Amino acid sequence: MAQQGGDGGQSDAAWIQRLEPSLRGNAQGPLAGLRFAVKDNIDVAGVPTTAACPAFAHTPVVHAASVQRLLDAGAELLGKTNLDQFACGLNGSRSPYGAVPNAFDARYVSGGSSSGSAYVVATGQADFALGTDTAGSGRVPAGLNNIVGLKPSKGLVSARGVLPAAQSVDCVSILAPTVAMAVRVLECLAGYDPADPYSRPLPMHTEPLSAAFRFGVPSQLEFFGDQQAAAAFAQAVAGLEALGGQPVPIDYAPLADAAALLYESALVAERYAAVRGFFDAEPGAVIEPVRSILAAGQQYGAADVFDAQHRLQALTQQASAMWRGKQGIDVLCVPTAPTHCTLAAMREQPVERNRELGYYTNFVNLMDYAALAVPAALRPDGLPFGITLIGPAGGDWQLAELGQRFHHATALPQGAMGQPLPAPLSIPALRPTPATHLELVVVGAHLSGMPLNGQLIERQARLTQTTATAPHYRLYALSGTTPPKPGLARVEAGGAAIAVEIWQVPLHAVGSFLALVPPPLALGSVELADGRWVHGFVCEGHALLHAEDVTHHGGWKAYRAQAN
Amino acid sequence: MAQQGGDGGQSDAAWIQRLEPSLRGNAQGPLAGLRFAVKDNIDVAGVPTTAACPAFAHTPVVHAASVQRLLDAGAELLGKTNLDQFACGLNGSRSPYGAVPNAFDARYVSGGSSSGSAYVVATGQADFALGTDTAGSGRVPAGLNNIVGLKPSKGLVSARGVLPAAQSVDCVSILAPTVAMAVRVLECLAGYDPADPYSRPLPMHTEPLSAAFRFGVPSQLEFFGDQQAAAAFAQAVAGLEALGGQPVPIDYAPLADAAALLYESALVAERYAAVRGFFDAEPGAVIEPVRSILAAGQQYGAADVFDAQHRLQALTQQASAMWRGKQGIDVLCVPTAPTHCTLAAMREQPVERNRELGYYTNFVNLMDYAALAVPAALRPDGLPFGITLIGPAGGDWQLAELGQRFHHATALPQGAMGQPLPAPLSIPALRPTPATHLELVVVGAHLSGMPLNGQLIERQARLTQTTATAPHYRLYALSGTTPPKPGLARVEAGGAAIAVEIWQVPLHAVGSFLALVPPPLALGSVELADGRWVHGFVCEGHALLHAEDVTHHGGWKAYRAQAN
Repeated sequence: MAQQGGDGGQSDAAWIQRLEPSLRGNAQGPLAGLRFAVKDNIDVAGVPTTAACPAFAHTPVVHAASVQRLLDAGAELLGKTNLDQFACGLNGSRSPYGAVPNAFDARYVSGGSSSGSAYVVATGQADFALGTDTAGSGRVPAGLNNIVGLKPSKGLVSARGVLPAAQSVDCVSILAPTVAMAVRVLECLAGYDPADPYSRPLPMHTEPLSAAFRFGVPSQLEFFGDQQAAAAFAQAVAGLEALGGQPVPIDYAPLADAAALLYESALVAERYAAVRGFFDAEPGAVIEPVRSILAAGQQYGAADVFDAQHRLQALTQQASAMWRGKQGIDVLCVPTAPTHCTLAAMREQPVERNRELGYYTNFVNLMDYAALAVPAALRPDGLPFGITLIGPAGGDWQLAELGQRFHHATALPQGAMGQPLPAPLSIPALRPTPATHLELVVVGAHLSGMPLNGQLIERQARLTQTTATAPHYRLYALSGTTPPKPGLARVEAGGAAIAVEIWQVPLHAVGSFLALVPPPLALGSVELADGRWVHGFVCEGHALLHAEDVTHHGGWKAYRAQAN
Repeated sequence: MAQQGGDGGQSDAAWIQRLEPSLRGNAQGPLAGLRFAVKDNIDVAGVPTTAACPAFAHTPVVHAASVQRLLDAGAELLGKTNLDQFACGLNGSRSPYGAVPNAFDARYVSGGSSSGSAYVVATGQADFALGTDTAGSGRVPAGLNNIVGLKPSKGLVSARGVLPAAQSVDCVSILAPTVAMAVRVLECLAGYDPADPYSRPLPMHTEPLSAAFRFGVPSQLEFFGDQQAAAAFAQAVAGLEALGGQPVPIDYAPLADAAALLYESALVAERYAAVRGFFDAEPGAVIEPVRSILAAGQQYGAADVFDAQHRLQALTQQASAMWRGKQGIDVLCVPTAPTHCTLAAMREQPVERNRELGYYTNFVNLMDYAALAVPAALRPDGLPFGITLIGPAGGDWQLAELGQRFHHATALPQGAMGQPLPAPLSIPALRPTPATHLELVVVGAHLSGMPLNGQLIERQARLTQTTATAPHYRLYALSGTTPPKPGLARVEAGGAAIAVEIWQVPLHAVGSFLALVPPPLALGSVELADGRWVHGFVCEGHALLHAEDVTHHGGWKAYRAQAN
């Protein structure tokens, strides 16, 4: 950030410093043709990393791992974006380069600390941008600017080359106008990096949430008097219900208690630790209230950290119950930010107002959750309202799949650009499904509505197609089976097409499913009407000798309907 | 610990305070008939928990979760055992109740801090005992007394009702004369406890290590001049090689650096945090050098903790490479303790000598590893020498399986009792294999030595039985299959017994295996010679019409041998 913009942020310098020329990536990559910007606490080789603190600036010689991956994937780097100094803030006004305005109304804050990244995406100056997220810095500005903020699971995206805010909970995050764009970027960013201490090989949940997903909603909601936000959240909950979701009230107390620890306990010292040498030498180079926040970290003793960490662990354990069991939720839904705030009000009460913006975000990284901020509405006053979907680490794709459906159902425009949302992306298709699922043809008691269908449902299998076999099969009602079961037999001549369903079964669950398959049934391969061979139920020949041929019914459901 | 014993520890009070009467558990439980003792930092309802600090003693009203589980399992609680005060030490002499002597030579330290627990097991006064292990307190005394010290993965055994030493790394541990006994106890102890903040549902590795397992050995060894220890370790490495293992030199530097952090960085403040209120009020009630160690924790600032934790995380990431890839190791082998130490020498240099004893233990819990200390030799001087097998979290059963084989190959006596080791236990059988593996009957190209056998091997499947089907099958050579494959068909009459193999396939790997099975083959169920029905390869009937009946060969291998 070479130039200093005025407060009020109307100059371009308040939100982006352009690279001239831009850095162009590999023209053949999956992100070729897309332009991005990066928050100025992320290294770009040869360009000063300021973290919005000019006296702190240093010029790195290598790109951050995330930047390198995006260039390798073909994206074009436009420049670096303004932020709350040292990524310490959730409002976007804590910068000597000026306050980044809200893209919808320049009297309001943009949210932060990834303020400039959110602004350039919301205004269409970049196709996507990188932010960072420790307390909510990748979500709050997305929510306040009608764009998507994808906060990946900790350790999924390398933070090598990112100035730490609180290193053990920092995440590189993605700001984008659509979930599809964020997911395309995450595909390129995700990967284990042994050179980042907090990177980890993370097992990802790739099966979508069940059709009747259960979503948690805080039983105590707080909007700080903002009726329009309250109404918009209620409408968002209804929107999730319209997608098949069942709302489940959850106790917000342990989450709120954990959130409070981030700034109101010795955990704040992790921020001081990140810039300790510089801060001890030049405290005056740090602007208020960042200076006071870092200084608070100096006041705690070592044992206070352990007290806070043990308390956090206890709260995390307590909260973990919400994800488990039949009463458990699949996803948690909260407002991304409870309200908006004018720049003037933020100037007046910079700590209190900032804390309000983080009411629903601070606990997420501390508790090792993934999160996705998605636009939900434009309020009557013209300001955006967003929700955040939260799940356990590794749930990033699940959140994206649901988030995209929710976002498209709102029919909102993209960011502040007024353009409609483009066609959604098939998110499961982005993951290598052959490695995660097995397609399985079911013929009889496992068909939807039939007695053993539950064996598929409880394994998170999904019905993907209702079709028929190639016309080379006969169907038999096996004698003496409970519940009644058919046997499907391929024949050389005289075969017919038999109605079947195709289910996607998570690969890891096939074993326990096979364990339930009794003789004479077996899992073999079935030729379908479209010529594909797909694994599925077949039957040993010896059992058909005394079985009734029911081929003329065309399928097991039709036969059973007649039999009952 | 109501009575105070003299230093030198010859009085019973120096190692155990007996409950009169003992607490008897459920007479029908799996541990019925076994007597145990617990370290006196673990709560027993109605009995003071002293942590070897009389002024600190409090009397709990409920048992620790681990004690309750053992009573529920039928074990009989004999009493509570002496320890290094606040579990702060690895030598067993830091107690106002007296120093616990080595069970083999009373001039030497027992090792600690689970000193009394190790002593009562080594001398046969208890069948097993509970210890705790933060820096090595469950392993060092095991190694110095010729018994087994099982240090479970963090969070596998509830620490509810245990006085924390450093809560985020504390583990309840098991001391026992044999691996089998320790495993039986762990079976009863292991389980998620939502009331313990650090308890976690941990996926366990239940497949044994491969026959040609790779074991890491530090490339830089340190025995502090003890030639007998050095020779015994070399002999132990040879012993693991004799079991099929391949030694792999590993860089010990990151492990040693992590070990040093436990006491020589702000991490030591976690110990101070555990007893802060008491220590601030009555520092004089704490004996040296424990007092100085706790006081050291007062000297650090909060940011120092984060510096140390980030450093630890970086070292852990660096060390994690040793477990990965084709060059990776399956298990790490270190000396449990590098040497012995007399009580006199310990009195003279209580900090330095204690640090030596922890040279190979301190890093383990910090890096989230499981460990098993196993006796390796009785040295020419009559003192024991032990090794510790270390693996990533969740590897407890794998370590036990290998550790038991190693221990039995030594033909050592049990503890200091002079009795031979009892018959080993089938450790994999202890785990509920139906939940983790599927038995699969293979008939043709998947048999050992046949072309597709690798599909089983690469999925970590294990051959468990070579047998035959019930005499109700016929075997056909399918035409046009590559590699050549048979079809197994059940028949109503005229069947024969066909040679088959049974493989245990990890349940999660069955899906990807089925994905490779082509028509007309299928995974169904096969009746075996012993009458059991087991899942396995069957064949659709239509494919047998033009196939050659090879039943008279008795099996696919015999047929193929003749065909080639």
